[in-house]
Amino acid sequence: MPGPGEFQIIRDYFSGAPQGEGVALGIGDDCALLQPPPGLLATSVDTLVADRHFPADANPGLIASRALRVNLSDLAAMNARPLWFTLALTLPDSNPDWLRRFADGLLQTAEAFGISLVGGDTTRGPLSITVEVIGSTHKPLRRDGAGVGHGIHVSGPLGAAAAALPVVLNEREVTESERRAAEEAYYRPQPQLSMAAALGDIASAAVDISDGLLADLGHICKASGLTAEVQMEKLPVAALAQTLAGERALQLAATGGDDYQLCFTLPPEHAEAAEKLGAVCIGTLTEGQGEVRPRLKGEPWVHPSAGFQHF
Amino acid sequence: MPGPGEFQIIRDYFSGAPQGEGVALGIGDDCALLQPPPGLLATSVDTLVADRHFPADANPGLIASRALRVNLSDLAAMNARPLWFTLALTLPDSNPDWLRRFADGLLQTAEAFGISLVGGDTTRGPLSITVEVIGSTHKPLRRDGAGVGHGIHVSGPLGAAAAALPVVLNEREVTESERRAAEEAYYRPQPQLSMAAALGDIASAAVDISDGLLADLGHICKASGLTAEVQMEKLPVAALAQTLAGERALQLAATGGDDYQLCFTLPPEHAEAAEKLGAVCIGTLTEGQGEVRPRLKGEPWVHPSAGFQHF
Repeated sequence: MPGPGEFQIIRDYFSGAPQGEGVALGIGDDCALLQPPPGLLATSVDTLVADRHFPADANPGLIASRALRVNLSDLAAMNARPLWFTLALTLPDSNPDWLRRFADGLLQTAEAFGISLVGGDTTRGPLSITVEVIGSTHKPLRRDGAGVGHGIHVSGPLGAAAAALPVVLNEREVTESERRAAEEAYYRPQPQLSMAAALGDIASAAVDISDGLLADLGHICKASGLTAEVQMEKLPVAALAQTLAGERALQLAATGGDDYQLCFTLPPEHAEAAEKLGAVCIGTLTEGQGEVRPRLKGEPWVHPSAGFQHF
Repeated sequence: MPGPGEFQIIRDYFSGAPQGEGVALGIGDDCALLQPPPGLLATSVDTLVADRHFPADANPGLIASRALRVNLSDLAAMNARPLWFTLALTLPDSNPDWLRRFADGLLQTAEAFGISLVGGDTTRGPLSITVEVIGSTHKPLRRDGAGVGHGIHVSGPLGAAAAALPVVLNEREVTESERRAAEEAYYRPQPQLSMAAALGDIASAAVDISDGLLADLGHICKASGLTAEVQMEKLPVAALAQTLAGERALQLAATGGDDYQLCFTLPPEHAEAAEKLGAVCIGTLTEGQGEVRPRLKGEPWVHPSAGFQHF
């Protein structure tokens, strides 16, 4: 078989990763050794599969960026500070150019968010990438902490990634600048770590919007035993969604996945603080049993899709 | 698409996992929340790919058992006590019977070794399983701690899993009892956690034997900057290897992978303690630069394979 072996891949492409806080021993032994800071650890794992979550021939640096960012978003949703991550990489072959670009994208993203690659596994098989992140939190934002009367807020514009998807999948022709904007939206979502850090002490619950606002808000409602009244006209719809999807933009903002903004809830006295940080209030929690009730100008809004289903 | 969706899979099949030590919040939020005990954490990740590491139609309970055990073996090699693990499961479809048997095998194995499933991801795609384990250690056994004159020991018989492989792959017909023994050897390797705990304070280095004794011992030699003199006649050859492989048994014990015994090094004054625990001394470390020198009755032993290469 051509190409470098497992040990050489790890050594050549990934062992240049900077060793950050709490890393007693990084890549290269049976385990990494980590010194956790005081407080709780938060951990999350996500797998991206070729031709399901990204086209197999996509830019490897962008694939790596997305694989790490979607996991960092889970840390943001828990109000956890990124510390360490591992990479399990399954590859159909061992292409040095592909690996170099993947590793560059991964390590650049890691550096930007202050997280250290501490271990991994490389295996031969159909292309897929599993990243596990570990962070530190003193004030975790669980889904079950919301209360009656708390406001529902989102951290930023929605719908861009869903509008970008047909472009990323080469199902739609667009201008070169639209393509670049679509790739940016889909492959480089911005984990809302700063917003989480700023609101962690005052928010009552949070979730990241990976499967669509209404679906993910539903998790807070179910976990907290409440109903969400959503005013659809207040949704911050991404400019790219308006450009690419026109009148479907609102629907994409409500039900499209992959934006990785945060949806969080706040006691009303803190609404102003959230607004100053750029978050947008889109509704209120009332007594109930886990329902999400979207309304547009007072009328029930019927949504054609209920979030991305993995099966 | 038929079958349950992602959330239902996690809820139905895996959320019955018992919540052990330090689990502040298990499956079901954006992250698990974990309270680490004092000391260092050790973490390792391994991916098993269908038709590379196991036949796609293998017993799902056995696949799950192996996926967790190979990771527990990495904790043993580091002298770490198992605490938590996550599962990233990629499935071509969502078959309730397969999932039930997989989950049963996984959770039974987890219970037997006192490790808690705290999170995961399920994705649609070619069958593969990525498990990440986290353990706790006060006295980690790194690969780079071995010294000149230290003895080289293995924790138990070698070669069984390599001899079992053609049976597991249905490439060879055997008796029903040989088939059962082969499946046991390949799918249910015994992570050497007790041996690691007993020898942790006196061993100088350790590695688990996943890619073959001589290859894995080579990692200790390279990391410690020493040469290994191995007396091949001392290797504890598994009975199953002798039954299935005949005169190739010694070769399989030396170069076959997948046994997940430990290879560790000890200052000579502790050799007796290791022997009492059932470990076998197979050689000595001398000055050198990372070589492994196997000899059979004093003559250099030439091995046809140098350990499993993942690419």
